[in-house]
Amino acid sequence: MISFRVTSTCGSARRGILTTPHGEVQTPVFMPVGTAGSVKGVTPTQLRGCGAQMILANTYHLQLRPGAEIVNELGGLHRFMGWNGPILTDSGGYQIFSLTGLTQITDEGVEFRSHIDGASIRLTPADAIHVQNLLGADIIMVLDECPPLPSPPDALHEAVRRTLLWAEKCKDAHHRKEQSLFAIVQGGLDATLRKECAESLVDMGFDGYAIGGLSVGESHEEMMSVLPRIIGSLPADRPRYLMGVGMPRDILAAVRCGVDMFDCVLPTRNGRNSYAFTAQGPLKMRNERHRNDSNPLESGCDCEACASFSRGYIRHLFNAEEMLAATLTSIHNIRFFQRFMARIRELIVDGNLGTIEAQFPIAGATMQTSEPGVESGCSD
Amino acid sequence: MISFRVTSTCGSARRGILTTPHGEVQTPVFMPVGTAGSVKGVTPTQLRGCGAQMILANTYHLQLRPGAEIVNELGGLHRFMGWNGPILTDSGGYQIFSLTGLTQITDEGVEFRSHIDGASIRLTPADAIHVQNLLGADIIMVLDECPPLPSPPDALHEAVRRTLLWAEKCKDAHHRKEQSLFAIVQGGLDATLRKECAESLVDMGFDGYAIGGLSVGESHEEMMSVLPRIIGSLPADRPRYLMGVGMPRDILAAVRCGVDMFDCVLPTRNGRNSYAFTAQGPLKMRNERHRNDSNPLESGCDCEACASFSRGYIRHLFNAEEMLAATLTSIHNIRFFQRFMARIRELIVDGNLGTIEAQFPIAGATMQTSEPGVESGCSD
Repeated sequence: MISFRVTSTCGSARRGILTTPHGEVQTPVFMPVGTAGSVKGVTPTQLRGCGAQMILANTYHLQLRPGAEIVNELGGLHRFMGWNGPILTDSGGYQIFSLTGLTQITDEGVEFRSHIDGASIRLTPADAIHVQNLLGADIIMVLDECPPLPSPPDALHEAVRRTLLWAEKCKDAHHRKEQSLFAIVQGGLDATLRKECAESLVDMGFDGYAIGGLSVGESHEEMMSVLPRIIGSLPADRPRYLMGVGMPRDILAAVRCGVDMFDCVLPTRNGRNSYAFTAQGPLKMRNERHRNDSNPLESGCDCEACASFSRGYIRHLFNAEEMLAATLTSIHNIRFFQRFMARIRELIVDGNLGTIEAQFPIAGATMQTSEPGVESGCSD
Repeated sequence: MISFRVTSTCGSARRGILTTPHGEVQTPVFMPVGTAGSVKGVTPTQLRGCGAQMILANTYHLQLRPGAEIVNELGGLHRFMGWNGPILTDSGGYQIFSLTGLTQITDEGVEFRSHIDGASIRLTPADAIHVQNLLGADIIMVLDECPPLPSPPDALHEAVRRTLLWAEKCKDAHHRKEQSLFAIVQGGLDATLRKECAESLVDMGFDGYAIGGLSVGESHEEMMSVLPRIIGSLPADRPRYLMGVGMPRDILAAVRCGVDMFDCVLPTRNGRNSYAFTAQGPLKMRNERHRNDSNPLESGCDCEACASFSRGYIRHLFNAEEMLAATLTSIHNIRFFQRFMARIRELIVDGNLGTIEAQFPIAGATMQTSEPGVESGCSD
């Protein structure tokens, strides 16, 4: 079971401590994503070295391969992955809606085809909880219906109705009390619908509240048009988690609204695609211009990649298609996000969060952070 | 400049210390291969953790990409790779003969086509040394002609004649005295020719002597039919290096003949192909039978992979095509070879090398070590 305590605030931004069965997490926190039980290309030892506190694993992927029973037989997700820190699993809903040939959705659940072998699979809200109970993460998520954006109003209302129904069913099905259950607020960009959804979930009572269905292609301004209204409906004493976010600018704006938790594949997916994050913006490491550059990816960075390797070497590794290219750039990117969050936490305590854009221009509104090629996504 | 000192013997087997500008190496030593300036999938920190003392890098690959000048501009190979221990570079000869569309070979040198872009490249013995001087390894190799096996006697004689001519030219061209230059004995499976080649090279005088043109498809027995004769012609006070070997059984037999140094891509190439080495023989980790096996790759192994991960997890990683599969299995395999060599060194000191097969049955003559699928090769 988790507990959560806000220790400082700066405007609506909160500095807190989330205590889990696998240790404390300093919030606001960014969770790297270990889609299939592995943060791609990075060992748990390296992940710790990057300062990662908590990671996310995707139920959908683990359920298909190797199967939740196997993970359970092998001692549960912490033992399986060799990560003894806190873990959060999503419910699989988002992947089902985005990756599969979905065949049917009813109030009972979803029927979909595996993106791996096309096998037909039925998943009820109770199944989603059962699978996550077998995996054994510290925090688990309700099954929700996540419509694409834009969706017609009827579809958004129907998704919220079903999300609330499923949240209730998930709550009833959850019996492993050392795992905490978070609800997910849906409702697209309709602030009134979002508020209604949030209030209904709060009435049911959950250990924490997530905001789903954002960072699915809408603009930063659209995201920010609903986020404060949702947060306003959530209890102050429970952690708030913005799923799948994301870019430094979105994270910072959400922290300023009072969000505590984030996850995204950005550091690793872009690491594999040769993008290195720096406070000044992303660098494309495949570029010829890095050929004989003896500087580290980012000067002043304390990660393993910046400590020992030049841009010229990392550019060579990408060029030669060496695995180490992705590993070193992913390590740097994960560390970059951890340094960014650590600085945010410090500045909240100092009451000085307004200075963060000066230190991390990448998080400023004037910088185009999403250079063509920089990719986000639901699982890695 | 290197120095070499034999500290113990057991029969013809030697325990020694090779001192290089980048530290001491305990021999007999096995060098993992960092083909393009990276031991595939493994960071230098992980490599140290595996107990690797010295690594090999392929001049051919580095010369084509990123180019020796770039490596030199970025501080030389040690700085470039982030490996501050000893490094050996080969001359590129073997790769030219095995990987390229070779267009011409004369006493002046070779003209070949790059396997990357088909560009036509000329390489003289002096060029091979110049390139290795730019790379800056502790030990560099002469350019040799490496004929395939079997080759007709005329071709073998011609290759030896040219290898001797080129060795002389390489010696003349080498002016960076902190780098030590090794000669390479050729001559196929003709023991008399091998002996003549070795004696001529010893007359010229080199810092060490390598045996090339073996482990190119011939049987263990064929290899062993010439090895003792070659060793008998080499000076006792210089290190002896058997290039591209290899399987534990071949290494052990060569150690018993008095070989001090080995290199091979076996640990990493097979790691990527899902083969994990154990004292009892290789395990194919993709196999279904490891699905829910909670044991480590090899019980009693102290590597990072065996310390934290089950066979079931690693099997899952291969199945899900996660990069970490190759990394963890490569780490285990590199550690396996280091443990094997460390045990050999201990048993030489104890005068008890005869007991090694009982501890490492994989090195015994009765075990079929090369299960179908286990791969060797010239560069990784």
